[in-house]
Amino acid sequence: MSVLVVGTTALDSIKTPKSENPRLLGGSASHAAVAASFFAPTKLVGVVGGDFPAKYIKLYEKHGLCLKGLERVADGRTFHWSGEYEVNMNNRRTLETVLGVIENWQPVLPGDYETTPFILLANISPSVQHRVLDQVSKPKFVIADTMDLWLNIALPEVLSLLKRIDCLVLNDSEARQLVSEDNVVNALPKIHKLGPKYVIIKKGEHGSVLSGPKGLFVAPAFPLKKVVDPTGAGDSFVGGLIGFLASQKSGSIETNLRRAIVHGSVVASFCCEGFGLNVTTKTAKKEILARVRELEKLAKF
Amino acid sequence: MSVLVVGTTALDSIKTPKSENPRLLGGSASHAAVAASFFAPTKLVGVVGGDFPAKYIKLYEKHGLCLKGLERVADGRTFHWSGEYEVNMNNRRTLETVLGVIENWQPVLPGDYETTPFILLANISPSVQHRVLDQVSKPKFVIADTMDLWLNIALPEVLSLLKRIDCLVLNDSEARQLVSEDNVVNALPKIHKLGPKYVIIKKGEHGSVLSGPKGLFVAPAFPLKKVVDPTGAGDSFVGGLIGFLASQKSGSIETNLRRAIVHGSVVASFCCEGFGLNVTTKTAKKEILARVRELEKLAKF
Repeated sequence: MSVLVVGTTALDSIKTPKSENPRLLGGSASHAAVAASFFAPTKLVGVVGGDFPAKYIKLYEKHGLCLKGLERVADGRTFHWSGEYEVNMNNRRTLETVLGVIENWQPVLPGDYETTPFILLANISPSVQHRVLDQVSKPKFVIADTMDLWLNIALPEVLSLLKRIDCLVLNDSEARQLVSEDNVVNALPKIHKLGPKYVIIKKGEHGSVLSGPKGLFVAPAFPLKKVVDPTGAGDSFVGGLIGFLASQKSGSIETNLRRAIVHGSVVASFCCEGFGLNVTTKTAKKEILARVRELEKLAKF
Repeated sequence: MSVLVVGTTALDSIKTPKSENPRLLGGSASHAAVAASFFAPTKLVGVVGGDFPAKYIKLYEKHGLCLKGLERVADGRTFHWSGEYEVNMNNRRTLETVLGVIENWQPVLPGDYETTPFILLANISPSVQHRVLDQVSKPKFVIADTMDLWLNIALPEVLSLLKRIDCLVLNDSEARQLVSEDNVVNALPKIHKLGPKYVIIKKGEHGSVLSGPKGLFVAPAFPLKKVVDPTGAGDSFVGGLIGFLASQKSGSIETNLRRAIVHGSVVASFCCEGFGLNVTTKTAKKEILARVRELEKLAKF
């Protein structure tokens, strides 16, 4: 079955202690849609400006993304994020954000997108996420990602979104912030009460935790010898996750979700090994599946 | 088979945002030996002063610990540590340390301890760890725990110890410090080169990673709704681990180590649920085994 991914399509300039990388392909939807495309037909809903390089469109096409929902504003500027990582690659700070064409974007879905069964509301303003949900009809599964920015400046919209989705993905500090609870495990039932049947806490190099009607799943991350650039890892995670879910011909969401998380986690591990999408887009599906098998062995007891 | 645990036997005063708890039973050897005793006969090697409460001796005895190697210095003061935790229970600072009888302690093992097959050098100065190793003969397996303090003030002794042990246990920042390497996964082969065949990185609530001749094992931690006091969790982890290893009648160290880590991790989870040893000493073995089975379910995919 197919996946619709909405989110930011961006140019990222990323500085690390070792190098500077201007105008990489980035954005939550870019990472998530490419990740999903390894497993299922994927539709990308986003907006770019006239400055968006043709080579990045070709990269999307190489991954078979349907681009009918990618709006192009010839006289606008693409959303641009620039950030800097510290030596340990865990702490980053934003140097500059230029919203450009994303600022007043109101996505309009192509008519035949309405019945897409799997919807990923990748990280973008909750008003855009709402607007996409308004245009789809009875999806089978809706996942939303978010970030601290939206909890800070658009909490009411996030809260109303939570009542419309099946699964919320967020990191541990955001989970604590959302329900004012120091302990993440304790935060989970409180987040369920806000709406989503499933909640997934991203913990980066420490893996993730799924909470659902059948309890918790503690998922490992693939141990990496080299982290070049973690930007987009969370988006790759959730993209790979929903792509895998959509690709499964049997089994319920509940039974497939654990393996979906592991597949998402492995796509994210490739993402971290290069700047932007450099390594992800050079990765073959068989390499992803091989690393999933390796992770199974690493985690078995 | 039996386990010898050497380390500190202490009185801990622990302050958290919610309460103050003076003169709890603490110390690396107390936590580790009690944890090991759930699985195997355990000998405690340590030193206490005349101020050490008789009730704590009774507690040791309740757990069947052999106390022939517990030296009592009637006119001395027991090692005392006092510390304070922040709200998130992850950051702590030491308020006071009184070395007391531990300062010039040179352990002398009871003669029949010489042939103990499983030796745990719990966290204490590397000179004491060396001295205990000098007095045992061909142990089957030696694990050493350490901490940043010893890497800072006694590095040469730590390095010579590494050549005498089978397994080193340390946390991620200590691993990075030991071999000046930012990435923990990359630090592992460098630590092996210093001596130990096995290295275990403790990551607290995020579980642990084992590195050995057959590669890595990524181990989960039991997700806790309430962390009351994490003091001694690392000691409980390594104690439960070696106790489980010593209890196994079949299988090689290599094959038993993964499950040993999971058992250690579960004992540590009980430790965190109360101050000092309060919850650990009230826990039944069947509760530990039930939580191991639960963790198996939580981590399966």
